[in-house]
Amino acid sequence: MRFSLPLLLTAMAGVLPFTASAAQSADIVLKNGLVLTMNGDKTVYSKGAVVIKDHEIIAVGDDSITNQYQAKKTMDVDGDIIMPGLINTHTHVSMTVFRSLADDVPDRLHRYIFPLESKLVSRDMVRIGANLGNVEMVKGGVTTYADMYYFEDEVARTVENIGMRAILGETVIKFPVADAKNADAGINYAMKFIKQYRNNPLITPAFAPHAPYSNTTETLQKVAKLSEQENVPVLIHLAETHHEAEVIAKRSNGLSPVQYMESIGALNNHVVAAHMILVNDKDIAIAKKEDIGIAHCMSANIKAAKGVSPALKMFDDGLRIGLGTDGPMSGNTLSIIDEFNQVAKLHKLVNHDRSAMPPIKVIEMATIGGARALHMEDKIGSLEVGKLADVIVIDTKAPNMVPIYNPYSALVYSANSANVKDSIINGRLIMQNRRVLTVDEDKIRQQAIDYTQVVRDTVIKSGEQVL
Amino acid sequence: MRFSLPLLLTAMAGVLPFTASAAQSADIVLKNGLVLTMNGDKTVYSKGAVVIKDHEIIAVGDDSITNQYQAKKTMDVDGDIIMPGLINTHTHVSMTVFRSLADDVPDRLHRYIFPLESKLVSRDMVRIGANLGNVEMVKGGVTTYADMYYFEDEVARTVENIGMRAILGETVIKFPVADAKNADAGINYAMKFIKQYRNNPLITPAFAPHAPYSNTTETLQKVAKLSEQENVPVLIHLAETHHEAEVIAKRSNGLSPVQYMESIGALNNHVVAAHMILVNDKDIAIAKKEDIGIAHCMSANIKAAKGVSPALKMFDDGLRIGLGTDGPMSGNTLSIIDEFNQVAKLHKLVNHDRSAMPPIKVIEMATIGGARALHMEDKIGSLEVGKLADVIVIDTKAPNMVPIYNPYSALVYSANSANVKDSIINGRLIMQNRRVLTVDEDKIRQQAIDYTQVVRDTVIKSGEQVL
Repeated sequence: MRFSLPLLLTAMAGVLPFTASAAQSADIVLKNGLVLTMNGDKTVYSKGAVVIKDHEIIAVGDDSITNQYQAKKTMDVDGDIIMPGLINTHTHVSMTVFRSLADDVPDRLHRYIFPLESKLVSRDMVRIGANLGNVEMVKGGVTTYADMYYFEDEVARTVENIGMRAILGETVIKFPVADAKNADAGINYAMKFIKQYRNNPLITPAFAPHAPYSNTTETLQKVAKLSEQENVPVLIHLAETHHEAEVIAKRSNGLSPVQYMESIGALNNHVVAAHMILVNDKDIAIAKKEDIGIAHCMSANIKAAKGVSPALKMFDDGLRIGLGTDGPMSGNTLSIIDEFNQVAKLHKLVNHDRSAMPPIKVIEMATIGGARALHMEDKIGSLEVGKLADVIVIDTKAPNMVPIYNPYSALVYSANSANVKDSIINGRLIMQNRRVLTVDEDKIRQQAIDYTQVVRDTVIKSGEQVL
Repeated sequence: MRFSLPLLLTAMAGVLPFTASAAQSADIVLKNGLVLTMNGDKTVYSKGAVVIKDHEIIAVGDDSITNQYQAKKTMDVDGDIIMPGLINTHTHVSMTVFRSLADDVPDRLHRYIFPLESKLVSRDMVRIGANLGNVEMVKGGVTTYADMYYFEDEVARTVENIGMRAILGETVIKFPVADAKNADAGINYAMKFIKQYRNNPLITPAFAPHAPYSNTTETLQKVAKLSEQENVPVLIHLAETHHEAEVIAKRSNGLSPVQYMESIGALNNHVVAAHMILVNDKDIAIAKKEDIGIAHCMSANIKAAKGVSPALKMFDDGLRIGLGTDGPMSGNTLSIIDEFNQVAKLHKLVNHDRSAMPPIKVIEMATIGGARALHMEDKIGSLEVGKLADVIVIDTKAPNMVPIYNPYSALVYSANSANVKDSIINGRLIMQNRRVLTVDEDKIRQQAIDYTQVVRDTVIKSGEQVL
């Protein structure tokens, strides 16, 4: 077909200016997806798109919005689920190197884990374990996690390497540990780490007083004060065990751990409390008033027969509550997807009500709820314009995921961590079609496997049974 | 180096006759694996092999045994776990096409599922759903399953196509269903199906009276008599709900469902009873005396807030008990691996004991326990010479599976269904490196997705809410 020159120019005028100047530039466009925004209205786009520029989400909506953008990379996800990255509000990532060791031993923490750690925790162990755990989390759709352990500056380097987001809490505990001879040394280590990572775009450094019973009142008060002064989070195990409750009741004339922490001024809106199993209505009211975050770790809690936290009540009461895996010697996996179906089902069981804890609440806890638990809901946890671009894509074609009448049900009752296909964190593509792009997965796995010989030698020497 | 002819012949004599005639022929050799035999001694070979000829296992042992065999196919599994195929003792495989539909609705069976089925169950639906569920099960390591549904001759064809092993129970129920207008018509359908599949190497046809409350005493007695006459299994839901217990107590002057079934002569060593949640010590003693098999369906039971079956006590008391997923509208997945960690953890929780239900018991229930539940322990459930060759290989290099100090722990607390790499059923390689070799997975998925439109149209017409 021939055009006269004026006609051709007219035709071009209708197209060229639109793509050349009216279209805004973007870095990544995800399109043709079932978009679960997890915004305040829980908006779902059945054929939707998410547009990312630099580190942020700049548009979310029906696929038609993509016409307005000229993107460096366009990902047609062919009907798969696009959702906010999952948030793991409590773990000890480096403990992957101990996974499957001496499970189910009574009084395991004091009889087994602390002695094992006193022999083995080192910069090497922390780095090797964190590298492996980071890969597991990315492959399981986790984009942000909160960690409590030792040598957190080593963990920080692994997090930067893979390109995840993390709150890293340096442990403060009253007995000698690998990187500090007492609680004050732990505080000093943490302060140094906080100064080093204060303005890092991916890492939020934090204090991690181990628990109320394993620290003095003075230490807990000192950490609380410093957390306000430095404006950093405080990660702590709280209301987790009967042993803890007994020690604290003795220390405080009968207060519960939550009441005790409030009474000494150690609860504030920097605190993220893991577990919160042994809490009554008064404790829950205090947690709400003090605006603390809560990490609900169902899988680990029931594995240790510790009980089921009243997480559903805390969620319904409007507390800041998200999901956590706990460490890989406790959970034993690091993928938040592995928590979903246990969280949904256990709350039904203990409430004798099959309609309790519906899937949408579980997904809320895993995303925006986790963000609220970490006091980061202004930055992450939902797909909304202006939020940081932490986005995952879930395969809807794996046989366990077919069909999908209700995407929340499919995620909670059917999905496993291997159904996560792609992960974008802080606007950067970290995993595509299950291949992690930023680190060498094979090398990381081999380093972890090699390290197991160190663990075996130590455990066998100590006379403990590995198998 | 030069040899004299006599010396060379002497040297060859030490080698050639061995490979040429002393070596026995085999079809498949799996070697270099961590072999969990699940035999009576729970023998583990840390670097072991399994040798298969025709449909049977002809050798199990250390890798050195492979020198004695000349195999058509040798699979070096590079340290991965080799174990018996998993046994799903209770499902309704065709219901995959309804998965994620109307979860968590109170009184769901009567208000939702039965009406839905009365509109939709057909040969097409049964075939399409079973094809999808079979693929999901193979990819999740299930090699044998027990099914209760309608048009089981359609299910049988799908099972033969993919090459799985199954007990298929044709439903007997007192109200009109898609393939029978009443219980007697169901019995007639079942009898025809039994005659058709009596000598099939993969399929065991069976009766499936739905439950005590949904059948008359006469029907249950008739089925019991026919099961002995035809020497076939009887699959039934038993002691599952309070509604059932009330109906049966009224019918029988206060007997429990198990006691009632015994009193009418409907329990025998052909019965496989699903659920067995509401059972007391007397019921358990009866179940043991009558030698019935039990399908423990933890995931489905707690999702419906029905409670936790005393499966640990039944296991410890020596009853025939295996694991089941229940149907995909209940569980919602069909992979027995998805049951592992819930089974291990819930029994710890309800027994207030973290050492209760250790991983090795869970793996026993999933393999030889499942075989015992189906009264097939002489044929399947462990890797032993003379048993049928149902063998799976589990990836030990996925990040969630690293490291492995204790393989039972790793399987129960870390593995997911995507960690299953290879599957051999009845001596035939059905899946290799996660690719199903015997059916067209893409076509099966697309047929299931296409069918969802029929379901959507029906549900939307009926005014029920899908999302």
